[in-house]
Amino acid sequence: MAILERNDTGAIAQLKMNAPDRLNALSDEMLAALQAQFDTLREDDSIRAVVLSGAGKAFCAGHDLKQMTAGRQSEDGGQAYFQDLFSRCARMMMSIQSLPQPVIAQAHGIATAAGCQLVATCDLAVAAEGTRFGVNGVNIGLFCSTPMVALSRNISRKHAFEMLTTGDFISADKAVELGLINRVVPEMLVEHEALSLAEQIAAKLGTAVKIGKEAFYQQLEMPLDRAYDYTGEVMAQNMLHRDTEEGISAFIEKRPPNWTQ
Amino acid sequence: MAILERNDTGAIAQLKMNAPDRLNALSDEMLAALQAQFDTLREDDSIRAVVLSGAGKAFCAGHDLKQMTAGRQSEDGGQAYFQDLFSRCARMMMSIQSLPQPVIAQAHGIATAAGCQLVATCDLAVAAEGTRFGVNGVNIGLFCSTPMVALSRNISRKHAFEMLTTGDFISADKAVELGLINRVVPEMLVEHEALSLAEQIAAKLGTAVKIGKEAFYQQLEMPLDRAYDYTGEVMAQNMLHRDTEEGISAFIEKRPPNWTQ
Amino acid sequence: MAILERNDTGAIAQLKMNAPDRLNALSDEMLAALQAQFDTLREDDSIRAVVLSGAGKAFCAGHDLKQMTAGRQSEDGGQAYFQDLFSRCARMMMSIQSLPQPVIAQAHGIATAAGCQLVATCDLAVAAEGTRFGVNGVNIGLFCSTPMVALSRNISRKHAFEMLTTGDFISADKAVELGLINRVVPEMLVEHEALSLAEQIAAKLGTAVKIGKEAFYQQLEMPLDRAYDYTGEVMAQNMLHRDTEEGISAFIEKRPPNWTQ
Repeated sequence: MAILERNDTGAIAQLKMNAPDRLNALSDEMLAALQAQFDTLREDDSIRAVVLSGAGKAFCAGHDLKQMTAGRQSEDGGQAYFQDLFSRCARMMMSIQSLPQPVIAQAHGIATAAGCQLVATCDLAVAAEGTRFGVNGVNIGLFCSTPMVALSRNISRKHAFEMLTTGDFISADKAVELGLINRVVPEMLVEHEALSLAEQIAAKLGTAVKIGKEAFYQQLEMPLDRAYDYTGEVMAQNMLHRDTEEGISAFIEKRPPNWTQ
Repeated sequence: MAILERNDTGAIAQLKMNAPDRLNALSDEMLAALQAQFDTLREDDSIRAVVLSGAGKAFCAGHDLKQMTAGRQSEDGGQAYFQDLFSRCARMMMSIQSLPQPVIAQAHGIATAAGCQLVATCDLAVAAEGTRFGVNGVNIGLFCSTPMVALSRNISRKHAFEMLTTGDFISADKAVELGLINRVVPEMLVEHEALSLAEQIAAKLGTAVKIGKEAFYQQLEMPLDRAYDYTGEVMAQNMLHRDTEEGISAFIEKRPPNWTQ
Repeated sequence: MAILERNDTGAIAQLKMNAPDRLNALSDEMLAALQAQFDTLREDDSIRAVVLSGAGKAFCAGHDLKQMTAGRQSEDGGQAYFQDLFSRCARMMMSIQSLPQPVIAQAHGIATAAGCQLVATCDLAVAAEGTRFGVNGVNIGLFCSTPMVALSRNISRKHAFEMLTTGDFISADKAVELGLINRVVPEMLVEHEALSLAEQIAAKLGTAVKIGKEAFYQQLEMPLDRAYDYTGEVMAQNMLHRDTEEGISAFIEKRPPNWTQ
């Protein structure tokens, strides 16, 4: 059984982390499998949205602590391994944001530490009722410094700081309120909800979504005037796509668009 | 009838977009009229707050798609026109932020695409119950890339991304919750609410509000230490204004201030 | 009686501003006392969390307007004094963020102008029911330009702008909703709540919290890729601490950690 299962339905790719006995920890193998899939999906125009979930009782419990502990055996006490591990993990997280297709986290059970980072990093997130989110590394003396990069770009400072220093979990309802996730539904409906959202997005013009997702994260890091210069160009280019012309004509003529994609 | 009506009452300027048959679309003419008014208001010390509303069934439905489509007739397929259009639109939006007077959006009906951007861009926003907000260009293959600049600086990432990629509308109540607008009131009270807010601000010392609004957007784009250096100077200058001296003296002496402005 | 009382219980330092007749205004003396304490605490490894409260009816009502008015007597009308005052105040605020230990604001009564800035600046904040928060300098002609630096980095733009230009107070419940504070409790429990939060954090591994707090504010001002480079290094270093090794081992072995700190 693969550590990361992929199941495509139409234009939707469902990725399921499949190491339930380790609560889908982000082991070297899991990170590599996720990276490989995102690298493949990046080139795959037939896929328009990705759903990421976890098998078993949890979405993802963060890094694999046993594997990290084993890494201490090397001469440098693990330093090079840890640097490389966090670098590979960050690269995988940034691959989610740079992926042309929107990625939807489908969370349940627990999403902790780097597992919570994964939820924060995905473009969208839905969760089952009862899901608990935490950046609780502080409880074992390992502050969730890399997860905090994603968390603190999603929720307000006071709440992020509280989660990081107390190690307390928050509920799915609280996560919606804080802006960490988009929606919470009963557990038996969470896959359906994630897929519906994916299908809704997959039904849009793929080029437009791709253009938009890239521009979303780019402009967030620019000052206002540069953000407008940049997105103005992006939008002018968007206007020149044949399918966008058809989409606008169809709207004006009150008929469904006839897109080539 | 002008495409943009202006009505002054005391220190308040009410601007009403007046192309109800086009749902107050931001056509070339509407953009020019808005730009001209903001350029005029910038120099007008007698006006201390601006309210922006729309005539008819909607606040504003975004760009004028028929006009944009007509723009395709040129040799370059419209490229130069579109670039120029988005540049003029961005300039108008940035003029709202750089205007010395606070601008309050008074929204009703729908505020979509660049109309939603207009709400996000105004310093403050009130809306009638039932108003729907959306950045729904994705539905016709034109991702709302420029509206997203304003939207993503007002609400959290997950919610902004959801609105942009699903094209779904949100209610006025949700818009308050997300921080896109300040208040929602019954439709028959929305003008009254916008004017009350404008009057409350207009009753403050004009110089102080002007200083503060400029500093608000400037410091937001600075790192913390520079933001403090800059606002420290701004506040020291503010202290030296004769009317601020009088305001503070009056407060200490428990009497109303006798301001020259 | 000292203008700033300090009371240590175990690893918690409680600082109480003690100028109740002036609503704990940030006078030259109060600013100096706070700065001195933070400078001392910075070097004090025995303290792991700080609680900041105010004696009397208010947490803190901002700058000392009578003292500022007296400052006008100098030849330059006070300009040099005001510049210096805002610079000292900003330095004190930034000392809270750069302090290794988390600082928890324990607010009650009112927290206005620079008093509201103090709440926004602390890493965490709890408030008594009935506490009112405002940046109301605009009411006396002195826009809260420096308080806005902290406020606008904690709550959304529209809400910050409204508070700054209307001068209106918000309730403690609203402050939680906006993200300005973490929790609101009945006034008789507010000290208990602040101390509980401090104790919870003090019970964590001190090195981890210290590392994490510093990284929190550093990475917030970086673009995403640099934030990940930086925190990846921080976390690799964190892994190499002996106590972190013990914390992780204890977790794997399902026993309490035996930390040297």
